[in-house]
Amino acid sequence: MAARIPVDEHAAFVRSLLTGLGARPSERVALADALGRITASPVESPIALPPFRNSHMDGFAVRSGDVTDAPVSLPVVGEVAAAPGVPAPLEPGTAVRIMTGAPVPDGADAVVPVEDTEPDVVADRIRVLRPRAAGEYVREAGSDLAAGDDVLPAGVRLASRHLAAAAASGLTELLVRERVRVAVVSTGSELVSPGTTLGPGEIPDANGVALVAAVRAAGALVVHEGRVRDDVERLRAEFDAAHDAGAELVLTSGGVSKGAYEVVRELLEPLGGWVGSVAMQPGGPQATGAYRGMPVIGFPGNPVSAQLSFELFVAPTLRAIAALPPAASERLELAEPLTSVPGRRQYLRGRRDDDGRAVVVGGPGSHLVAALAASDLLIVVPEDVTTLDAGAVVDTVVL
Amino acid sequence: MAARIPVDEHAAFVRSLLTGLGARPSERVALADALGRITASPVESPIALPPFRNSHMDGFAVRSGDVTDAPVSLPVVGEVAAAPGVPAPLEPGTAVRIMTGAPVPDGADAVVPVEDTEPDVVADRIRVLRPRAAGEYVREAGSDLAAGDDVLPAGVRLASRHLAAAAASGLTELLVRERVRVAVVSTGSELVSPGTTLGPGEIPDANGVALVAAVRAAGALVVHEGRVRDDVERLRAEFDAAHDAGAELVLTSGGVSKGAYEVVRELLEPLGGWVGSVAMQPGGPQATGAYRGMPVIGFPGNPVSAQLSFELFVAPTLRAIAALPPAASERLELAEPLTSVPGRRQYLRGRRDDDGRAVVVGGPGSHLVAALAASDLLIVVPEDVTTLDAGAVVDTVVL
Repeated sequence: MAARIPVDEHAAFVRSLLTGLGARPSERVALADALGRITASPVESPIALPPFRNSHMDGFAVRSGDVTDAPVSLPVVGEVAAAPGVPAPLEPGTAVRIMTGAPVPDGADAVVPVEDTEPDVVADRIRVLRPRAAGEYVREAGSDLAAGDDVLPAGVRLASRHLAAAAASGLTELLVRERVRVAVVSTGSELVSPGTTLGPGEIPDANGVALVAAVRAAGALVVHEGRVRDDVERLRAEFDAAHDAGAELVLTSGGVSKGAYEVVRELLEPLGGWVGSVAMQPGGPQATGAYRGMPVIGFPGNPVSAQLSFELFVAPTLRAIAALPPAASERLELAEPLTSVPGRRQYLRGRRDDDGRAVVVGGPGSHLVAALAASDLLIVVPEDVTTLDAGAVVDTVVL
Repeated sequence: MAARIPVDEHAAFVRSLLTGLGARPSERVALADALGRITASPVESPIALPPFRNSHMDGFAVRSGDVTDAPVSLPVVGEVAAAPGVPAPLEPGTAVRIMTGAPVPDGADAVVPVEDTEPDVVADRIRVLRPRAAGEYVREAGSDLAAGDDVLPAGVRLASRHLAAAAASGLTELLVRERVRVAVVSTGSELVSPGTTLGPGEIPDANGVALVAAVRAAGALVVHEGRVRDDVERLRAEFDAAHDAGAELVLTSGGVSKGAYEVVRELLEPLGGWVGSVAMQPGGPQATGAYRGMPVIGFPGNPVSAQLSFELFVAPTLRAIAALPPAASERLELAEPLTSVPGRRQYLRGRRDDDGRAVVVGGPGSHLVAALAASDLLIVVPEDVTTLDAGAVVDTVVL
């Protein structure tokens, strides 16, 4: 029997197979569709921000020299709203009423906020109560950004504030990295579509739904989904369909263990793929290979194993490409003692109890899909550890 | 001049206006569309998990009593695959080859993993090398979950592992909370659609794009987007359109300060709304009201003010409804000294420098939309603080 591959070695090998995915092509998307996408290159603003000199306050545009000796009274000769148009230049010794964001007239070099004024006893005049220096409450054109400057760098994951800056620059679309195109294929003659009435020996396919959602949560795009019974030619047809759909990566579940009907093994091994055992529980049987230029990562068919294998081996790479943070890890105390098998890294499903300690949920069985759903962390028990006491500190992976 | 309302008081008032949004109607969505949605009620599994007794390993199904004295030799009388069908009962003194996940035949009560066997010298027989007790490597029907038990609780934000458990239960859709239906309306005669060639006095509307994206990032749904010039009847028409689109909340930008063309003020004040000043910078002018049963929260028109106001006053409620974690806050040392205005809580845009200290990005101006995009945190300067030294510890809000 072949030796079990250490977890970290398998993880490194899968990572190396996925290296090519890191060089992303780019595509243009509308601002409205760009939330969460990653800029492919620095984004230049075609205009200055703000595009014209404008008022920071509701008040009166003046020449600062006219209010040096405030309080002073000035005739109000007009009004400038935040609206299209070019205001008339400001004559010396006069003021115009001005709204926040409105263009400051030529000739004016300061804005006196309305709070620093009072109506004059004479009609159509304003009393300015405080002097205002040149530039006060005036936003100069380009004071946020000059035309041609970068408004966003490359590689930024777009949040609302980035889209706001792009919109303010007059942009309607952005060049972003294409998401990784992934195919998900479930194998197993026992699998039926969820919702189908189950005959004897049949179970709903949970892996398809789980891996599709997990791929999306990792920032990638599912371009093909398939489910095949244990028939290598059908699997080959799914891989061909994935290739035709432009998949850059194929994820499979099932068909990698030591039974008689292991279709992933049957397909990949003649193509030079590897199907073997990794020193972990759950998730021992794993596969790696390539098909028509697409890396293929094969997970076991047990739904807990398949989900965990994705999180450990593939999600880190996809998340990094999507500029998502890696899964958090925490060191927690165990609420209860536990035992583990020697020679394999155990990933027990668990949750934090009310005291912030890690407690195991369900058992180690790789079929306990409801227990996994009830968990919020994985408790990592190293290969050489077989017993842990309550209170022992363990590494956990936050789900 | 009316007194400025304290930030926390305004925040509490807005929160109270949004209380009604917390009681969410529910809707059915397909599993494929349910990622990130929130279960509206506990989800019952119509079937047991697993639905039938099956093998945990590739190996041989036996009667445990037949292998007590292992090593023993047993005739292999058949094979059970993980495939539809009912296997024949196991006769005493025999074994059947069995695959992982395959139904364990009646009569068999243990599975001997293939690793614990070797081929017998006699054809069609297997040598079992180790005894296996009743139940070993057998997954009992219902050992994960009994039929009728809850596979998911109410109020869980659906991740891939939850969808996997629902799929394994044979479910195809889930009852989830409806997302909050929000309308976003920008006001300002100076605003044009991003991408439009700018005439004098015109600027691209950044607030629409920003608030729509921010609403989505907070887990809510934008059902209406509008932009109006400073014309109260046009604003009323937008609010009516929002109502017709089923909006439960209207967010506006602009039209709330002290100028002459303040359309949000003109519309809301006669309806009993409040338009006034909050003791903060940026974002002083704010509005609250209601229109045809929809709460209306009005932000200032400056894009930095509008975005910040949303994050401070509305996002916490929307995020809580969507079961998203609140924005993180951190206490950081200032990299440089800073000054602030008395009587107003200042939210300076900033980022972490290489030493993990907070450094201010851009100035305090509410028009610095590119500087906001370049920030990753807000530095909070309390109302009564006007100067802070380098090294002073400040609260920050992580963007």
